[in-house]
Amino acid sequence: MRAVIPFKKSNAKSRLSTLLTDKEREEFAMAMLSDVTETLLRSGCFKVVDILSTSLIDDVGANIVLTEMGLNEALNEYLHKMSSHFFNEPVLIIMADIPLVSIKNIREITASHAEIVIVPGRMGGTNALFISDPSRFHVDYYGASFLKHRNIAEKKVLVYEVFDSFNLSTDIDEVADLAEVLLHGTGRAAGYLKKLGFVLEESRGRVGVKRK
Amino acid sequence: MRAVIPFKKSNAKSRLSTLLTDKEREEFAMAMLSDVTETLLRSGCFKVVDILSTSLIDDVGANIVLTEMGLNEALNEYLHKMSSHFFNEPVLIIMADIPLVSIKNIREITASHAEIVIVPGRMGGTNALFISDPSRFHVDYYGASFLKHRNIAEKKVLVYEVFDSFNLSTDIDEVADLAEVLLHGTGRAAGYLKKLGFVLEESRGRVGVKRK
Repeated sequence: MRAVIPFKKSNAKSRLSTLLTDKEREEFAMAMLSDVTETLLRSGCFKVVDILSTSLIDDVGANIVLTEMGLNEALNEYLHKMSSHFFNEPVLIIMADIPLVSIKNIREITASHAEIVIVPGRMGGTNALFISDPSRFHVDYYGASFLKHRNIAEKKVLVYEVFDSFNLSTDIDEVADLAEVLLHGTGRAAGYLKKLGFVLEESRGRVGVKRK
Repeated sequence: MRAVIPFKKSNAKSRLSTLLTDKEREEFAMAMLSDVTETLLRSGCFKVVDILSTSLIDDVGANIVLTEMGLNEALNEYLHKMSSHFFNEPVLIIMADIPLVSIKNIREITASHAEIVIVPGRMGGTNALFISDPSRFHVDYYGASFLKHRNIAEKKVLVYEVFDSFNLSTDIDEVADLAEVLLHGTGRAAGYLKKLGFVLEESRGRVGVKRK
């Protein structure tokens, strides 16, 4: 079983630019990638963990596979390569910006008896996909990709499961999302934000973040 | 085992007022309450399902318990009453605005061996609390209530579990949240939005809603 994390370091997390410098955004993106990678490795589920990256990055314990392609093209080529292996092994595709993911989450997803496990992100996204037979599936990210992936599974008559997880639904894109990392995170991403001076802030009964 | 849903009909869901009239907001709030209540009843887990309401409401199949108190006061009085019963039975407190909740969610929460199950909402909220011994716990909603409930459990040396669910984390407060109901809902709340002409809308790769 293999896992693959698509990653783009340059101009990472641009919607955080109101509170983080370019360098801090890159470091924060690396901290989240490191949390996801470590969780995958520690789950003990995978023979190989690959990072499909558009640039050279620091070692986080996984293989770096460089690509110049866009997200869909790079992942579909990856699936195609896997399916032409002698062992057409299952692949977990997982996003780099979901630092709350737990080892239990990964073990439950990969233990599913469904042919496809779709893990929704907020607002129609897909934050992870477990594909038992890579020769029978392709990805179609952006927009309401959750619906697109469900349609692909239905058209190919694949048994699919929708995996229900707050941890995995929580991709960190905007300033408000940083509150989720401070509230629930225990890894490097949470540690990095705390090091930068981020704290939770409550006003009128609602929770947000501020930088001290 | 009992379940209790706090509910406020008057001026419900005020943050949806840009797209829904007062009457529509009340009807939508009732549709969500109905989805949650039906899921609780169909789970088969509860002898009694109570709705703690600030006003008389239409029958949705549960007991209506009228109260004039605020959320925390009403729920803490409810817990106090339960704990003075001969059978100090477990109580599930669940919010009325989480229409994606599933029967599987409810069965898993109530099957927990922990003394307290805390189900986080987004941005520090608490969308459900399962309390095995109501005499040993009190609630403290608003703000980062997830952290407050965790602290209460820790101070009382209660074994607690954090229940990880996207369905349950998704409380519907703002216009953007309506997209989650259209994307993932199968009940009355989703049906009501569709009847009003709400559809998903994609622009620049992001998903939102519009009213036709």
